[in-house]
Amino acid sequence: MPDAPKEIETLIEMMARLPGLGPRSARRAVLHLIKKRGLLMQPLAQAMQAVAETARECLNCGNISTADICPICESEKRRNSEICVVEDVADLWAMERSGVFKGRYHVLGGTLSALDAVGPEDLRIPKLIDRVEAETVTEVILALNATIDGQTTAHYIADQLEARVRVTSLAQGVPVGGELDYLDDGTITAALKARKSL
Amino acid sequence: MPDAPKEIETLIEMMARLPGLGPRSARRAVLHLIKKRGLLMQPLAQAMQAVAETARECLNCGNISTADICPICESEKRRNSEICVVEDVADLWAMERSGVFKGRYHVLGGTLSALDAVGPEDLRIPKLIDRVEAETVTEVILALNATIDGQTTAHYIADQLEARVRVTSLAQGVPVGGELDYLDDGTITAALKARKSL
Repeated sequence: MPDAPKEIETLIEMMARLPGLGPRSARRAVLHLIKKRGLLMQPLAQAMQAVAETARECLNCGNISTADICPICESEKRRNSEICVVEDVADLWAMERSGVFKGRYHVLGGTLSALDAVGPEDLRIPKLIDRVEAETVTEVILALNATIDGQTTAHYIADQLEARVRVTSLAQGVPVGGELDYLDDGTITAALKARKSL
Repeated sequence: MPDAPKEIETLIEMMARLPGLGPRSARRAVLHLIKKRGLLMQPLAQAMQAVAETARECLNCGNISTADICPICESEKRRNSEICVVEDVADLWAMERSGVFKGRYHVLGGTLSALDAVGPEDLRIPKLIDRVEAETVTEVILALNATIDGQTTAHYIADQLEARVRVTSLAQGVPVGGELDYLDDGTITAALKARKSL
């Protein structure tokens, strides 16, 4: 497009590659940035540069951190006995926001997928098995997404680890505040099967 | 939130201030960037820095450019006789994408608004009047949004300029490809009032 200067078009194209932004919203965002170039754009560019230079994956668990070993792996306040396995760092952050889990994490970096040719070696599954053998772990909690790939991955990991350690997974059921009328059949079926006496 | 390192939280907060991104999508975007920090994040940070340093408003028309006078104002191929007045640079780009207008532009930088205390001096209206007086303009085309503030601004500008130059505005009616069933009453009314014989 010849309507905006080349540098600005390049920036818009890059912004449009972010998840949640398309070409149109990227253009809006860039215009907004240019209007606030002193107050927002310069600091944002610098913050982005700083994170690009310092962020890396924790060598132990795969969490994103600015050090080789992340604060959760370093912390002495967290239990070594439990490892919570998640697909992605965003899931780890979601777990941490709930504040209920006090063990360690392991970030797989995706799920097994026959279609996309993702095997155990492409994820952090071998490292997980190493950790279970080396550390004093008594329970591995699988907090994978309730998708087909997520559940396939959960079954694979359970198969690998069941002989060595207790393997559990998050309960499926009605979300807190959820209305039955808006739930899919699968959730209702799962919640009914896993019903508890009061 | 103590779940992500401070630098990353700062970046997420800044990204969340962009239009179209909230806290959740900003977090997703930043995670995506961190995963592709070599391929996408570093170049994006640099592109943003470059634009922050070079982008500025054209001193003549208010278009965004990397020079003091924008390429449209500089171009010898465009007619001096017509000035198209738009609210925002995004509107100028939209007009340019259509490729139909061959005159010059004038970007107001917003609309008059009693509620937000935006008066003519807060916009580029005095500069527009100067241009109409100094340049060989025969027609001012108001391409303002069909909102109340946009139309108020159009009437104000028309009042100021009508004695000196022909003032027109974009036609209102059914959008090309639009279905009547999905149009609001105001558009149908405007299209009916402005009906043409075939």
